[in-house]
Amino acid sequence: MSKRFEPCGVITVTTDFGHRGPFVGTMKGVILRRFAAARIVDLTHEAYVHWPAEAGFWMARSYHYFPTGTVHLAVVDPGVGTDRSVLLAEGDGQLFLAPDNGLLAEAIECSAARVYRVAEAVIDAHALADKSATFHGRDVFAPLAAALASGTLSPADCGTETSDYVPSIIEPPERRGAQLQGVIITTDHFGNLITNISRDALADFHRPRVVAGGHELTLHRTYGDVAPGELLAPGARARRARARPRRRLTV
Amino acid sequence: MSKRFEPCGVITVTTDFGHRGPFVGTMKGVILRRFAAARIVDLTHEAYVHWPAEAGFWMARSYHYFPTGTVHLAVVDPGVGTDRSVLLAEGDGQLFLAPDNGLLAEAIECSAARVYRVAEAVIDAHALADKSATFHGRDVFAPLAAALASGTLSPADCGTETSDYVPSIIEPPERRGAQLQGVIITTDHFGNLITNISRDALADFHRPRVVAGGHELTLHRTYGDVAPGELLAPGARARRARARPRRRLTV
Amino acid sequence: MSKRFEPCGVITVTTDFGHRGPFVGTMKGVILRRFAAARIVDLTHEAYVHWPAEAGFWMARSYHYFPTGTVHLAVVDPGVGTDRSVLLAEGDGQLFLAPDNGLLAEAIECSAARVYRVAEAVIDAHALADKSATFHGRDVFAPLAAALASGTLSPADCGTETSDYVPSIIEPPERRGAQLQGVIITTDHFGNLITNISRDALADFHRPRVVAGGHELTLHRTYGDVAPGELLAPGARARRARARPRRRLTV
Repeated sequence: MSKRFEPCGVITVTTDFGHRGPFVGTMKGVILRRFAAARIVDLTHEAYVHWPAEAGFWMARSYHYFPTGTVHLAVVDPGVGTDRSVLLAEGDGQLFLAPDNGLLAEAIECSAARVYRVAEAVIDAHALADKSATFHGRDVFAPLAAALASGTLSPADCGTETSDYVPSIIEPPERRGAQLQGVIITTDHFGNLITNISRDALADFHRPRVVAGGHELTLHRTYGDVAPGELLAPGARARRARARPRRRLTV
Repeated sequence: MSKRFEPCGVITVTTDFGHRGPFVGTMKGVILRRFAAARIVDLTHEAYVHWPAEAGFWMARSYHYFPTGTVHLAVVDPGVGTDRSVLLAEGDGQLFLAPDNGLLAEAIECSAARVYRVAEAVIDAHALADKSATFHGRDVFAPLAAALASGTLSPADCGTETSDYVPSIIEPPERRGAQLQGVIITTDHFGNLITNISRDALADFHRPRVVAGGHELTLHRTYGDVAPGELLAPGARARRARARPRRRLTV
Repeated sequence: MSKRFEPCGVITVTTDFGHRGPFVGTMKGVILRRFAAARIVDLTHEAYVHWPAEAGFWMARSYHYFPTGTVHLAVVDPGVGTDRSVLLAEGDGQLFLAPDNGLLAEAIECSAARVYRVAEAVIDAHALADKSATFHGRDVFAPLAAALASGTLSPADCGTETSDYVPSIIEPPERRGAQLQGVIITTDHFGNLITNISRDALADFHRPRVVAGGHELTLHRTYGDVAPGELLAPGARARRARARPRRRLTV
């Protein structure tokens, strides 16, 4: 069983809101109204819009770099205002809070988390009085995150434990004979293509050939090993490939 | 009369500086030099360049999500280095600090604020010694915000009360018979068009028709109610319309 | 000799990581794991990718706006994973930490800094246990910055003093008779072109003519002095020119 959550006062925020407008700022305002000592860290606000898979992917790969007792809040919420519910997961001594739309699946798996469906009564008790239909990040999720990070609300008091939540949008990579076929989950600022093929999945391959979007990528340990503009894949040691975005990676 | 300001140590910062270069960062450095315990929250730095109306719009709609006693600093300042003056407004227990260029008009109205023109002597007493002609955000506004947020400077000591300040750049929506015509103030990361037509202004309309840029928009409560790519306007419950930017909305 | 460093708990972070993905966020997570009271300020994360000159330029021009005792961390690191080493500089009571790739040259000069090459043993003692080959910002630099900012590691204990480090990528402006020719280091969100020609270098010129990319720029004190769209250069009082990016400025 994984470590219990003891709040340390840190909250990470992940959204697809971008940096235009006051949307992330007002979420932080609400958090500070409810929990003045909160230390808030932006994970990213440039997740692909309405694509929970990216936010969930980054959250699952990032949480262990944060102090034990951190609350990780992610709001990529195409179903805001519909009847989708709110999930809370407790794993590795950390909390994960997000809409129930597949976003949390990977963090739950990585952290062997207990999962709670947050009860309507808990939402109503914490949400802003004038809750909108279009901005639950500010009106519902921020107050819940503040209450959890300050310790005034405990995970077990949020609702009933459940194993019936929306699974990941991303299928695991498919094995066909000596071939492993994955998908690209997102891209980064440097042009890296980030796939669902993990380092461990490559361990079986003696000398893998990496193909993405019709390009064959040579394997190297660092960017400095190739000339600028040249494509590379990260040997057997990491999981990023450099190529054009949004194509299939075939290993 | 509205609540008095008691500083809580939180400062919000709104600019049109974007995220390239160290401009916002150095404003924060100056604040921390003067007031080490400041907690600084970015509202947005992607306001349309030299368009104070957007910054003022967001500030007026965001301030009440922050703790009472917050200082809201906005620097969208096409007249930097000219003889435009500095305004401070105190309303709803919060402070608003900005160039006198129309930016604060809406927050002043929403919060029924007292308005002060900041005296040159107060500016000189707080500004950085080597004040530039082009970056008052860092050299003038950041030190003033730090002094106000730390309580070392009180609003009433900033200058004389005034009702003679630059009004909002945005006219209120115009009523023509059964038609209400507004303007689009800004857009957001999701493609929402944000207008000057408020929720309340729609209360008189039984079944409003929404027209923007030649498109007729159907009314819905949430984004989940329509197919991707379809335009919608938010029923009678919110104030955003989804359509192409920068066209007139005719209701 | 310049002021000694006494940590104040503030860390600035400058990178070319952009805002997509959790890269900056996880650096902050690592810092907070090691030093819970750290106050972290973003300088910029939109430095031109793999162009240390811009990051170094901003750092050198920004550090004195921060409290004495600040640790300035910059990670623009095209050589990550190769054998480039880690530099630490102590000047004006501040610390500068970056890869040894020319990034720190200007801050070292401005602050008359002592320079240390960080010893492998110090890196190993502080780096994350599962150090990657591609992300030293998170795995090496963040832990070192946290240790320095918290005072658990002192500059002199980091390694041996050195004067043999990679110099600036940018040559100083070239004087040819009555002409001074510089280069554009970067651009900002407003379209300013930022050159390596300093205010002081212009002092000798009685009535300078400014030419950039074939355009002759008139001299003015503020943006308000010209019509929108018109090019200007900042008289003898500042160092920005407004024109098309990435061309040579000839004075």
